[in-house]
Amino acid sequence: MKSKRVNEILLKSIEGYEDRRPYVEPFTYHPEGTMGHSESENIKEKVKRDKLAESLKEAIENAGIKDGMTISFHHHFRAGDKLVMMVVEILAEMGVKDLRIAASSLTSAHEELVEYIKSGVVTRIETSGIRGRLASEISEGILGKHPAVIRSHGGRARAICEGEIKIDIAFIAAPSSDCMGNANGVKGKSICGSMGYAKVDAEYADKVIVVTDTLVDYPNFPQSIPQTLVDYVVVVDEIGDSKGIMSGATRLTSNPKELLMAKRVSDVMLATGLFVDGFSMQTGSGGAALAVTRFVKDEAKKRNIKLSYALGGITKPMVDLLEEGLVDTLFDVQCFDLSAAESIGKNEKHVEISADFYANPFNKSAAVNKLDFVILSALEIDVDFNVNVISGSDGVIRAASGGHSDTAAMAKVSIVVAPLTRGRISTVIDKVTTVVTPGSTVDILVTDYGVTVNPRRKDLIEKFTKAGLPLITMEELRKISTRLLGTPKEIEFSDEVVAVVEYRDGSIIDVIRKRKQ
Amino acid sequence: MKSKRVNEILLKSIEGYEDRRPYVEPFTYHPEGTMGHSESENIKEKVKRDKLAESLKEAIENAGIKDGMTISFHHHFRAGDKLVMMVVEILAEMGVKDLRIAASSLTSAHEELVEYIKSGVVTRIETSGIRGRLASEISEGILGKHPAVIRSHGGRARAICEGEIKIDIAFIAAPSSDCMGNANGVKGKSICGSMGYAKVDAEYADKVIVVTDTLVDYPNFPQSIPQTLVDYVVVVDEIGDSKGIMSGATRLTSNPKELLMAKRVSDVMLATGLFVDGFSMQTGSGGAALAVTRFVKDEAKKRNIKLSYALGGITKPMVDLLEEGLVDTLFDVQCFDLSAAESIGKNEKHVEISADFYANPFNKSAAVNKLDFVILSALEIDVDFNVNVISGSDGVIRAASGGHSDTAAMAKVSIVVAPLTRGRISTVIDKVTTVVTPGSTVDILVTDYGVTVNPRRKDLIEKFTKAGLPLITMEELRKISTRLLGTPKEIEFSDEVVAVVEYRDGSIIDVIRKRKQ
Repeated sequence: MKSKRVNEILLKSIEGYEDRRPYVEPFTYHPEGTMGHSESENIKEKVKRDKLAESLKEAIENAGIKDGMTISFHHHFRAGDKLVMMVVEILAEMGVKDLRIAASSLTSAHEELVEYIKSGVVTRIETSGIRGRLASEISEGILGKHPAVIRSHGGRARAICEGEIKIDIAFIAAPSSDCMGNANGVKGKSICGSMGYAKVDAEYADKVIVVTDTLVDYPNFPQSIPQTLVDYVVVVDEIGDSKGIMSGATRLTSNPKELLMAKRVSDVMLATGLFVDGFSMQTGSGGAALAVTRFVKDEAKKRNIKLSYALGGITKPMVDLLEEGLVDTLFDVQCFDLSAAESIGKNEKHVEISADFYANPFNKSAAVNKLDFVILSALEIDVDFNVNVISGSDGVIRAASGGHSDTAAMAKVSIVVAPLTRGRISTVIDKVTTVVTPGSTVDILVTDYGVTVNPRRKDLIEKFTKAGLPLITMEELRKISTRLLGTPKEIEFSDEVVAVVEYRDGSIIDVIRKRKQ
Repeated sequence: MKSKRVNEILLKSIEGYEDRRPYVEPFTYHPEGTMGHSESENIKEKVKRDKLAESLKEAIENAGIKDGMTISFHHHFRAGDKLVMMVVEILAEMGVKDLRIAASSLTSAHEELVEYIKSGVVTRIETSGIRGRLASEISEGILGKHPAVIRSHGGRARAICEGEIKIDIAFIAAPSSDCMGNANGVKGKSICGSMGYAKVDAEYADKVIVVTDTLVDYPNFPQSIPQTLVDYVVVVDEIGDSKGIMSGATRLTSNPKELLMAKRVSDVMLATGLFVDGFSMQTGSGGAALAVTRFVKDEAKKRNIKLSYALGGITKPMVDLLEEGLVDTLFDVQCFDLSAAESIGKNEKHVEISADFYANPFNKSAAVNKLDFVILSALEIDVDFNVNVISGSDGVIRAASGGHSDTAAMAKVSIVVAPLTRGRISTVIDKVTTVVTPGSTVDILVTDYGVTVNPRRKDLIEKFTKAGLPLITMEELRKISTRLLGTPKEIEFSDEVVAVVEYRDGSIIDVIRKRKQ
């Protein structure tokens, strides 16, 4: 337009438009960073048509890194992740200090963070889990006045969506991406399958850097992370090792005790009356929990029924259910093995979901809200059914909160399966070292000694009695384990808090203290 | 837990935790509406496992409707929509007043809104387009001191994402939904295909009511609208008529003049040098624009090349491209015919996108940002290449802003195709009645009299001269149309503003005034 149609005087004459801006030029008001620069008369040359950065360092600089910022990571590569250490090393070289790492979880791939905590590059850790040397150092108080924050997967999604975690820069390890940042986990040199946790980070972070080792033609498909959320795309040699996805916690069992317990879980499920056409389930990690899926398959076939959906970290037995037509949909926030990662790329009913869709307690309903059954593991469970999945009986952090408390709270029937004793340690104790999942949300404990029902669930006790299940009370279990193992010496803790355990709703359910020397 | 692990005293001893809340019970802090009620000792009975409301009225009441609220609708059923009038009728019966309707567009299905404006139920209208009696009454000033607001599809997405439009209740006409609100447009009695505009409304609205005539088992697939965003699900007899999707603006042409212009557009595309493997395009509505796709198909085949993506309102010719392997991906914000609506439900590379992904100028890049070509229509175009697609030469509102200004701004080459004259009216004029798309973003005009290039695009003039295209200047076109039609009498307008035209960035590019009597 040679002469503009609208000016301030006109706008002032229209009610409600007094402070509005008249049009100037097509890109006058675009936010910084969304357009390129060009002096050409052809304004089309101002449009930024790729987001590739020369290097990870350049992308980090352009994203405006500052001391004290919060950077986020997702753990879909689990023990095979290479991105966290790659980024932290660059940040250390750049002299950045006082970072908060908000990771969906941390694994054995991240033990070297210890050095960066010692040097002050990283001063805060927020995560679902911590393992290995990093976990033991944190348990010893290496983080000083900023205790680690342990959140469930649903709780982390809630904290991000509600603004409690404000991510400055999200780093997305993407098995494939195009030049605009459309990324997924099903194509590329190293696939990880679902990118469910990263989806929430990308949506709420101020800046988003997609890091890939496989740059593909535009438009990449599917768009697990859409270009609308991505600031920079960086190509590196290797983002992770797919083999690391399948770590100890998700290996299938051939242990007879675990198989016995798994069979008992399926008997429990049958006796609830909820094992009917259209039921839903999640199994957590842990040998027995995973083995349950095999029994479920046999029973579903026998009864000629089909599950509506299976949820959670998805494993090969779940994929088998889908491929045999025994479940309608798999909702997958994270692939627990390569079979799952391959399946999600080719079966449309194997659906990638975000951590928000999975378990955020404050959205308008998450997938966990429709669960009939969840089968969970435990490091410790106490006589009030409180469960510890984060610390060992030695008081040292060693595992992850995961979706444990999210699914336990929402499933119609939550079942914890664990052996009564592991070596010289009793799983059932008077008071768990750390509470991750409150006992009021745990309905059933299945051990190698029988089925223990939470006294709140009189309905289940009645059903299980009728079905002739081998019921045993918590008190009886305690007696057996004491008889077998004696009474362990209580660990003494100092007052120093080394980690805070958030419940999914953001309240603080427990703290982890440093052990007395 | 019988005795809580954490209390306020402990939290006050941890830096940064002074104001945090200790855990109480599993659902203590859940936001209102996310959980159900139950006095049972079994807390699992507190979990809300469906969102079905008895009636639309009940859902509206539960959503907390109040005078002055903003309610939103999407127009994927176009002329076949039944939801807007269904909702407004109920609101009128309930005595609600002073509503703002924020629709992605309004069609001939919404003419009766006139009565509800007269009775004060509706006092504001924000939309991409308005047609028929509603348009003529608004042009006459029926909205009084609140002019209608015309936005492009990208501009509306921006306004919602940036909080300029705050939607109190979004009504989603969903061809299918499950009891938790997972909804899509590809299953059900009446399909509409993509639900691209509704996706943004659902994400940002305070309350979301999904209205369907086809309730399916949980979980519905795919999840165009995810349960995480939905408050209530209502089942009604009929939400819309699929036949209404294919309205006048999207019919395929057999008009020889339109086919000639379409052929000329494809010649122009070839001459730009951008018609190479991997190029991208969008065609708008309008006979000639749609016919271009057929010529593109022939030329792509001849050259053995493939498009990377086609964008926009998707039509059968685009679906044919996909099925013949001539385009990698269709990005679909809205299906313009039933063939498209059927295709999106069965071809994974026919991808549903939100209006945000389509064209929001303020996200980190929209699909329009990678366009090579867009082919657009025009009601009027002036000698400065400004385009009017909203009002007739009589000054009366009659059409829609759509994605016109969004795609024109971002495509490397934007081509307007229109006949020089329509009946006794010239398309090319000295000053368009209303500016929707600024001339600086329009590169080429193709008419039945030749190819007219924006003088800013010297690069194209050079290429087209070499290619021997029939170039003609705006001034020459003006001379021809004046010779043919004489100089039309100018319409006289009063000072009263009846509609405000927003540019995609939220600035005001023009206003529409009431005609003088």
